[in-house]
Amino acid sequence: MSTSDDPAPLYSRVHAAIREAIREGRLAAGALLPSEKELEAAHGVSRITVRRALDELEREGLITRGRGRQAKVVEPLVSRIRTEIEEDLAAMLDLVRGTEAKVLSASWRLVDAPMRATLQAGEGEPVLQVDRLRSKDGKPIMHTRAHVPAWIGAKLDREALAGTTMLELLARAGVRIAGAEQAMRAAPCPKEVAPLIGLSAGDPVFIVERLVRDDRDRPIQHLLATFRWDSFSYRIRSTRSAAGRVVEISGAGHVGAPAEGASITRR
Amino acid sequence: MSTSDDPAPLYSRVHAAIREAIREGRLAAGALLPSEKELEAAHGVSRITVRRALDELEREGLITRGRGRQAKVVEPLVSRIRTEIEEDLAAMLDLVRGTEAKVLSASWRLVDAPMRATLQAGEGEPVLQVDRLRSKDGKPIMHTRAHVPAWIGAKLDREALAGTTMLELLARAGVRIAGAEQAMRAAPCPKEVAPLIGLSAGDPVFIVERLVRDDRDRPIQHLLATFRWDSFSYRIRSTRSAAGRVVEISGAGHVGAPAEGASITRR
Repeated sequence: MSTSDDPAPLYSRVHAAIREAIREGRLAAGALLPSEKELEAAHGVSRITVRRALDELEREGLITRGRGRQAKVVEPLVSRIRTEIEEDLAAMLDLVRGTEAKVLSASWRLVDAPMRATLQAGEGEPVLQVDRLRSKDGKPIMHTRAHVPAWIGAKLDREALAGTTMLELLARAGVRIAGAEQAMRAAPCPKEVAPLIGLSAGDPVFIVERLVRDDRDRPIQHLLATFRWDSFSYRIRSTRSAAGRVVEISGAGHVGAPAEGASITRR
Repeated sequence: MSTSDDPAPLYSRVHAAIREAIREGRLAAGALLPSEKELEAAHGVSRITVRRALDELEREGLITRGRGRQAKVVEPLVSRIRTEIEEDLAAMLDLVRGTEAKVLSASWRLVDAPMRATLQAGEGEPVLQVDRLRSKDGKPIMHTRAHVPAWIGAKLDREALAGTTMLELLARAGVRIAGAEQAMRAAPCPKEVAPLIGLSAGDPVFIVERLVRDDRDRPIQHLLATFRWDSFSYRIRSTRSAAGRVVEISGAGHVGAPAEGASITRR
């Protein structure tokens, strides 16, 4: 929420300054950032503002903080590539085509400080948490937990959440989806989620985590989607066309025999 | 290898015909394909040629085959997006920046039929298999197994494989890298790989599997990269720019405390 006592503008300034330094190479991959104290002095802001800027940079994957919280510029293993897309962002974010949703819970919650910072929610301000289970052909394949800030939660028709995606409901309510970050990783299945998707705690899961922003760069949805490992793969294809190079991104759900079909080569 | 007794041209024709039918929607998502017998008759080819075309379609993620091998058009969970990129493909495929490689083995092998089909290698024709272990800051984080067809293997200086990437060596040898498919998924760690990357069999791993093609659409490398689950995440960012929408793809290795830094939100 953008209110006058919200530290967002200040923290944004610090965040943008450091991000620029990283992008331009003044802070190189692997370099240590100045300490929190030095950043406080350099930007004339409070420790809490510095930390919020660093939280944001860490969330974006630009820095990591180890023991002692000393921040370091991330060294990417994959080169960054940048490309323009024409497509509707909502289409790119649709992870759930062809699945049926069951709303497990939808309730207002007080969340921890990192999630508050992610959603730019003030202290003591509740956010809406929606848990859903998605099935394909009657078999549960993914669990999702969405958090949205209060001003977004107020626009959501909770009854409609079983029938359509949250982003589609928000688009209908006039929210303009303009940006997203998605991170994909493997992880051990958390014990709360495991029985819901037919796994044991610690079994592999494929996790897609994302943060969606509106056209004013405000966070509107944080989503954590947990897939059975045998039910999802994410594909990126690059081919030549007459017009140049084409990159195609898609994900496919594969319910059934583990790995078969999820693999490029049938093994 | 493109020799006159190679079934590639025939299988390619069947493959292209079915792919077109899927792309144009004549074969819809979820639809069953004609049986192998019907495809044989329709295209006037042998069963082995039909199977090779279906293997290729399955590898591309366009179809799946269940029990009884009845092929079905895949229903994507994520909408496909297509975009043009300017960047060098080699940069997009570089998964290993900042890691040190140790060559575990490099040897000529006879591989199974699916891998032969993937690499368009004839029966009885050996392929080069290269296993490497990659570490960052002295800690093993990924195992890779590459397979290349004989005509590519002959161009590789095996001594140089510890110092640089295989694709870079091939580019230096005049091979033109023109296309790639990558699939990412979670899986239980295979028991042969687990001790090499400090995991137990069955622990979660993040797998990147890819097939790289040259400018004549010939397969030049199949790679299976197995990452410790706590050491890699793949990120896709979409933001607005003055010029339009920008999509940025990157992966970052995070060695250290599990999940911290690998997560969008610090938890």
